[in-house]
Amino acid sequence: MKTLVIYDIELDKVRTKVSELCKDYGLQRIQYSAFFGELNTNRREELRQRIKKTLGRTVGRIHFFPICDKDLRLVMQVMNLPELLVDGDDGEASC
Amino acid sequence: MKTLVIYDIELDKVRTKVSELCKDYGLQRIQYSAFFGELNTNRREELRQRIKKTLGRTVGRIHFFPICDKDLRLVMQVMNLPELLVDGDDGEASC
Repeated sequence: MKTLVIYDIELDKVRTKVSELCKDYGLQRIQYSAFFGELNTNRREELRQRIKKTLGRTVGRIHFFPICDKDLRLVMQVMNLPELLVDGDDGEASC
Repeated sequence: MKTLVIYDIELDKVRTKVSELCKDYGLQRIQYSAFFGELNTNRREELRQRIKKTLGRTVGRIHFFPICDKDLRLVMQVMNLPELLVDGDDGEASC
């Protein structure tokens, strides 16, 4: 089942280790603190345990969202990446 | 339907405005750049449009994940919040 892992982690070294763990389990980074990919129930629980151990008693919050195919078809995205802002202006936010 | 909104946004003023919009639409902050709550299809699209307008041509990436009740029951979390680390040590990460 596709799974989204998102996290707020205070210590840089712990955050780095958690992102490495997510990659080790085949997840792709979709945002700075968000990984996404296929995990079966055992692997999801195994990853959760390893992240919990890695976090230890340091400050952090990690969520695991399994996402079924039906929900996946409803996912939406708004995206402006630097390389897509072609004409060089840094763009103006309308707020 | 419950909806998770996660974002990476470069400019502070845009990020703040997007978080205000999420609150305006009744979502709860569950992480620094993640909001969660009930949104029907119209409201979800309306929020997406307003966030897109707010982002304008500045750098950012926002995902909207609708989450059905069945998936919701599978959500897991690992959490250490400062106030829960009672005995004062800043804790040791095991990594």
